[in-house]
Amino acid sequence: MDTIKSNNSLIVFGNKGLELLKSLILKNNYSKLFVLVDENTKKNCLPFFLKQLKNSFKINVLEIKSGEVNKNIETCEYLWNELSNQGADRKSALINLGGGVICDLGGFVASTFKRGISFYNVPTTLLSMVDASVGGKTGIDFGLLKNQIGIFNEPKMVLIFSKWLKTLDKRQILSGFAEMLKHGLILDKIYWEKLSSLKTVDINNIEKMIYNSVVLKNSIVLKDLKERKIRKVLNFGHTLGHAVESSYLSSKKELLHGEAIAIGMILESFLSYKVLRLSYDDLINITKTIIYFFKKIKIDNSQIIEIINLLKHDKKTVEGKVNFVLLNGISNTEIDVLVDKSLINDAFKYYNNLS
Amino acid sequence: MDTIKSNNSLIVFGNKGLELLKSLILKNNYSKLFVLVDENTKKNCLPFFLKQLKNSFKINVLEIKSGEVNKNIETCEYLWNELSNQGADRKSALINLGGGVICDLGGFVASTFKRGISFYNVPTTLLSMVDASVGGKTGIDFGLLKNQIGIFNEPKMVLIFSKWLKTLDKRQILSGFAEMLKHGLILDKIYWEKLSSLKTVDINNIEKMIYNSVVLKNSIVLKDLKERKIRKVLNFGHTLGHAVESSYLSSKKELLHGEAIAIGMILESFLSYKVLRLSYDDLINITKTIIYFFKKIKIDNSQIIEIINLLKHDKKTVEGKVNFVLLNGISNTEIDVLVDKSLINDAFKYYNNLS
Repeated sequence: MDTIKSNNSLIVFGNKGLELLKSLILKNNYSKLFVLVDENTKKNCLPFFLKQLKNSFKINVLEIKSGEVNKNIETCEYLWNELSNQGADRKSALINLGGGVICDLGGFVASTFKRGISFYNVPTTLLSMVDASVGGKTGIDFGLLKNQIGIFNEPKMVLIFSKWLKTLDKRQILSGFAEMLKHGLILDKIYWEKLSSLKTVDINNIEKMIYNSVVLKNSIVLKDLKERKIRKVLNFGHTLGHAVESSYLSSKKELLHGEAIAIGMILESFLSYKVLRLSYDDLINITKTIIYFFKKIKIDNSQIIEIINLLKHDKKTVEGKVNFVLLNGISNTEIDVLVDKSLINDAFKYYNNLS
Repeated sequence: MDTIKSNNSLIVFGNKGLELLKSLILKNNYSKLFVLVDENTKKNCLPFFLKQLKNSFKINVLEIKSGEVNKNIETCEYLWNELSNQGADRKSALINLGGGVICDLGGFVASTFKRGISFYNVPTTLLSMVDASVGGKTGIDFGLLKNQIGIFNEPKMVLIFSKWLKTLDKRQILSGFAEMLKHGLILDKIYWEKLSSLKTVDINNIEKMIYNSVVLKNSIVLKDLKERKIRKVLNFGHTLGHAVESSYLSSKKELLHGEAIAIGMILESFLSYKVLRLSYDDLINITKTIIYFFKKIKIDNSQIIEIINLLKHDKKTVEGKVNFVLLNGISNTEIDVLVDKSLINDAFKYYNNLS
């Protein structure tokens, strides 16, 4: 896999990436080097990772609990304290070894510690490989709202090791696959058709597709890091998907990010059919593909009311109007589409009536 | 006064600044406009400020308690919550109306809310006019350490109204004057001589000097926003000054920022005389000027031990070595000077023995 260049970041695969990481660490001569893990990546990824590096560098390990519920300001405070107590200074660096929570939160902690230290992302889930590790969005949840607090700041480098996917269960793999489906849907019809024709998501055969997804996402980030305009297309499925995810976060039931986005993509495809030019055939095609991979769940009326209420805090919501990215067709997006609440209700009815 | 251009910011004085602020607000068509105050600026500055603006714009007022002890993550959480509850979105903006705490903390809250909304600084203390409002340093204290958490991000514009200085007491005026003395000491011998010849700090005659200080500080910020190198000169007096200030923060006794920096400048001038080429005459000259304006305070041995201990967390400390900006003469600085602990002890002895 070739190196992918982002604005101020490099995304590099496998051993080639490992060699680059080592040389960057050597070149920058960090005063201290920290690696952030959770209990899963500590067990499944850290030993291999340290083995690759530790002959050359002394590394301090910082550990937090896994899970979206811990992506909050208290965890940041714990890490700022640990960095401080363990003598981190402006010339120190942090390596985020984990999934989306580790990359998003670790990036935010590094970006704000002493007004910013260097950080590296080493994503270990399919979701973080194709999405969270690339594009400079750092942040945490605040209250019930996802990624409410954060900044745009890119890691020095992203190292993608697809071998770590073997440590994940099927649900987690599918959670990342949802974002890959999205990349096809919004940006590349041929890629979408390839993915939607798959019978299963085979991790032994996925590296080329990860690469494809990262190239697609990066092509957008390069044009608009701070999401003023074109980057909004990456939010397809996320306006309603995030609200669905938040409503589950408050209920303590477990719904993975990609599982919520899968629902969001069906709902927003329905809206695309209603208010834009997405054809009924394409709506059916998208729905069938997503339902093939993601089991339908029941969303009851009280939850729908809560979800619609949450929308008013969505970062894409401006002046109280719900702002969507929708489709005029496969790989044909339109940003800043304002949609009526009544139609959002209809979208949930469409989803709930699927067999 | 002419407009001063910074990297991505404009610093504008008086009515001219007010007109520019109004036109920027109009042009950017913010979805919501917030102004952040404390109980002092709410009483002394907000009525006038709103009167100037409110015919044109609806403004939501956010209030926090004054004082460095409130420049913490809890206050940020309160404000993030308020912004969220009052319907702030990405197209909203925050105006910081207050001193260093309001500008630093408000800037950090705005820079991290939904990954960054626009903000404006309207400094109301001499200290924030000549220092905190200019240069893009946002942040909060964390634990006992000042400005430990933050990012570099400039306000869209800084509006300086020297008329508000009339609402301040003499100690607060002097607190800002300490930073002005510093600007002269590190960057402009003629300006230093002018300031050190003053009998009193006359706020009716100070606007030109504020302008001079801002131009001096800005000339450095323009060269090095992120403090990689030359900007470090602005830390003269601050390495020990911050530690003195932190030690007072923990003891709950009150010491203003400029009062701590005044002590820090004497201590660091002593170090400059010992390890660099600052002449004994200049050391005496600097000491006499500062002691003329700032009454000597007693720093006992246990406090000195605490202060030296705090130095290891200073942002400028790299690999455990205490890194100073020192003087080779008036307006002749040298950065990255490493100094022995024993000399720091001597510096405190020098200060304590002053009559």
